[in-house]
Order: sequence, then C-alpha cells, then structure tokens
Amino acid sequence: MTQNSPVAPANPGELAPAQARLMFRGGLQVPTTGWAAGFTQANLLCVPKDDAFDFLLYAQRNPKPCPVLDVLEPGQFDGPILDGDVRTDAPQYRVYREGRLVAEVPDATPYWRDDLVSFLIGCSFTFEHPLAAAGVPLRHAEANRNVPMYVTSTRCRPAGRFSGPLVVSMRPIPANRVADAVRITSRYPAVHGAPVHIGNPAALGIRRLEEPDYGDPPVILPGDVPVFWACGVTPQAMVMETRPELAITHAPGFMLITDARDDEYQIP
Amino acid sequence: MTQNSPVAPANPGELAPAQARLMFRGGLQVPTTGWAAGFTQANLLCVPKDDAFDFLLYAQRNPKPCPVLDVLEPGQFDGPILDGDVRTDAPQYRVYREGRLVAEVPDATPYWRDDLVSFLIGCSFTFEHPLAAAGVPLRHAEANRNVPMYVTSTRCRPAGRFSGPLVVSMRPIPANRVADAVRITSRYPAVHGAPVHIGNPAALGIRRLEEPDYGDPPVILPGDVPVFWACGVTPQAMVMETRPELAITHAPGFMLITDARDDEYQIP
Repeated sequence: MTQNSPVAPANPGELAPAQARLMFRGGLQVPTTGWAAGFTQANLLCVPKDDAFDFLLYAQRNPKPCPVLDVLEPGQFDGPILDGDVRTDAPQYRVYREGRLVAEVPDATPYWRDDLVSFLIGCSFTFEHPLAAAGVPLRHAEANRNVPMYVTSTRCRPAGRFSGPLVVSMRPIPANRVADAVRITSRYPAVHGAPVHIGNPAALGIRRLEEPDYGDPPVILPGDVPVFWACGVTPQAMVMETRPELAITHAPGFMLITDARDDEYQIP
Repeated sequence: MTQNSPVAPANPGELAPAQARLMFRGGLQVPTTGWAAGFTQANLLCVPKDDAFDFLLYAQRNPKPCPVLDVLEPGQFDGPILDGDVRTDAPQYRVYREGRLVAEVPDATPYWRDDLVSFLIGCSFTFEHPLAAAGVPLRHAEANRNVPMYVTSTRCRPAGRFSGPLVVSMRPIPANRVADAVRITSRYPAVHGAPVHIGNPAALGIRRLEEPDYGDPPVILPGDVPVFWACGVTPQAMVMETRPELAITHAPGFMLITDARDDEYQIP
C-alpha cells in the first residue's frame, strides 16, 4: 500500500454518506455492506434516453425487483437524494455494450454521455438492519460473506424492448423467525419488501442453493428455511438478455450510498 | 326514462367488475363510489407516446398523488388488471387538447389514437372501505356527497415538460380518530397512502374549506380535524397547466373499475 492508496476506514458504519462517497471517489474499491448506517444504499442503472421509458416501465411493472427510488434528468449526475456524482461515487462500476460486460472500473466518467438517464433502485441492505435489530439472524453477515443471489426461472413482466428473468437474494431463516422476517421486510416495499418465495428452491428453477449465480455460497444451519427476496441485480440480467446499446451499473455489492435515510422508506 | 336508457342497479356494491363495466359501456353515467365493493377503482390518464416518459417520471417523482397501478403499451386498451376497454368502461371521460377541456363524453373511442399510452392510477375510494370498517366516520359518504378536493399551493416535483400543483382530497376526522385514519391509510401506499397534511388548511394555500375546487362542500362537525390526502385529480391539474397535445381522462368521481382486489394493495 503506497502513501496515496485509499485506505478503508475502521468504522465505515459511522461515516456520513458524503464522507463515504468521497473515499470511493478517491479510488477505494470495497463492498459497501455496513457503510453509513441508517442511510439508503442504491443499485444504479444508467441507460440512454431512448431506452429510458422502456426501463422505467419495466421497473414500474416489476416493482419488487426494481423499486425505483429516483430517476435523474438526462445527463444529470446528482439529485435530491444524492448530493454527489453517480459517475464516481460508487466504489466500482460495470459497463455493458450491447449486453456484453466491457469494463469494470472505479470511475464511470470516461463512459458518460449527456443522454444517459440514471435510475437509483432500492437495495435490500436497507431492511437487513431492522432484521438484525429484531434478532433475526443474517447468516451471510455473521460469516462475513456476500449474500447469495440466483437467476430464477420466473420471468419479469416485459416492457417495450426489455425482458429478463427475476433475480433473487436468499437468506436462510430459522423456521420460528420466518414470520418475523416477512412482517419486518413487508414494511419496506421501496427496497424489495416482503419475500417473493419461501422454501422449495426448485419451484424457482434453482437447482443447487450452494452454487449461487452471484455473491457467496450460503451458510444454512439445521432448521433454517430458505427465504427469497427480489434482488436489484435483476436490471443487470435484463441488460444482458436484451442488449441495449449502452448501460452503466454499479458492481454487485459495491453500491451507491445516498443521502436518503432508511426510515424514509418504512411503511406504515 | 325510455326502455333503452341504462338503469342504475339497486345494489351496485354487489356487482362484479365486469358487470359494472358492461353497464357503463352501455351508456350509464353515474359516479362509481361504492360500486363493485372490494375491487380497485382507478384514475385514468391517456397521453401520446411522446409524452409518456415524462408523465411516468412525473408519477414516479410524485407517488403520493400519482400512484401508478399499471401502464398499458401504446395503443393497448386492456391489461392484466383490466379485462375490459379503457376507452368505454368508465362512466364518463374528459378530453383535453392543449390543456383545454374540449369534451365530456361517455365513450372516448372517437378520440382514441394508436399512439396513446394509458396510465391507471390508484384512487382513495380503496381506503375508504377499511376506514369505514374501523368505524372512522366518512362525513361526505354519510351526507351522500362527493369528497371535497382542493388545488393547493404545494408544487409537485416537475419531470421533463410536466409540472403542476398538488391536488388533495379532504376528510374531516374526529380528533380521537385521526391517528387511526393515519395508521389505516398508511397501509395503502398504492392508493395515496397516509395523509400529506393534518390541520391548518392555510398552510396548503387553501383559503376556504367550504369552497372546494372539485367535488362537494364538506360537512365538518365540532371537534373534527381536516385531514388531507394526495388526490388522483393531480394529473388533470398538470394537464391543464402544461398543455400536452392530447389527454384523455376519466371525469372526477366517474372511475374505471378494475379487476384488481383492494387487498392486493395492502401493506404489510
């Protein structure tokens, strides 16, 4: 590590969103789980204006995997819930051309265009805090792993030129806490809300829980039930299938930290 | 009344949505309060495809007044929650050209174009049923009046070419039931959700509660507090201010009855 290398802070949870974003803008590339506690992290998707209506409609029709927190005007890179820059403030970006991943970079500015519309999409990191506060165990967090994510056989409802599969995250929950997990996450519809599926992975077309498509393999204890939530990686699966000319996203787990507070998305 | 005039049924609340729509398609022009109990009524806005992204963004940015239940493909007049025809199945329509009301008609088919995109927007009729079931009095319903609606001094967040004021509905609620009204309506974010304002009409720029901009004057009993909810007439106020080339809407109170059940929109 040289003198100029960005260094991860000891207590990232205590940072203000602006402080966290400054570190990522400076080049720090780490996952954002647990950063800036109480502030909402977002999935990012930037597409050309010509594709923006179809994607907004896709999100509208598939609100569980694609809960839109905000949409910026074409070319705009900040907004009411982000006093920063979508092009630089996530720790890592993915750039897709015609559906193919062509770059994974810490700064998306070289790929920016004035016709890009940025979508900020809710992230389940938001409801993990109230789950933990209620004593519902989060196996992946306890094992210091990323949450496992799976591409399912369930199709999203298409919109215009866009189509794709539902992607889910899975958390193994003790049988006597499954109802609590449903009740608690139901209160956060803007960040994926209630589970889409409880038990039987095969019904979602998932053959082996131990081999997720994204993230790390799960830790499942005896008596745990697999509980599946719609996941914000769904738009990236849509991009890979439908191949828009250009799409810029965050890298999974390397989220954009907004200035919105988690509590703002709690209902009722 | 001639032999061929459509006749309002004695018990409209017991009709299935398809039965109700058939009556309106046949020419019956009455408000839909209390019709097809348990099924979701919707505000309607149809705009040309060229304006559809800006309106979808307007709705996305102003989800309390404009909660989108569904958006149909350009030219399409039915959808997953409406096994009918948006052009004929509301009791009455309004047609706006360049923001001016040019027709109020029972059938919008003559004005239909293949590039029109239809938005179905949630309606507070949905949460009036659980309010009544909890014993929260609905003064306008008890007096057999339409709910009073007011154009406020609060501005919606603009989107593209669209801008306009927030329109609210007002229900006078006894002081000891205001908390219940908040708690119950909070569970229905897809149909305007929790109140936007409680008490002091002047803070919304409303000078005289007894002179609403739409609907009937309120009945306010001693001890009642005026409680304001965001209202689905907001898109019509936007149309009048921003003057898109063409817009077709339902007439206020003459809603589109969908096949979706109210319970589907309850959270958690």
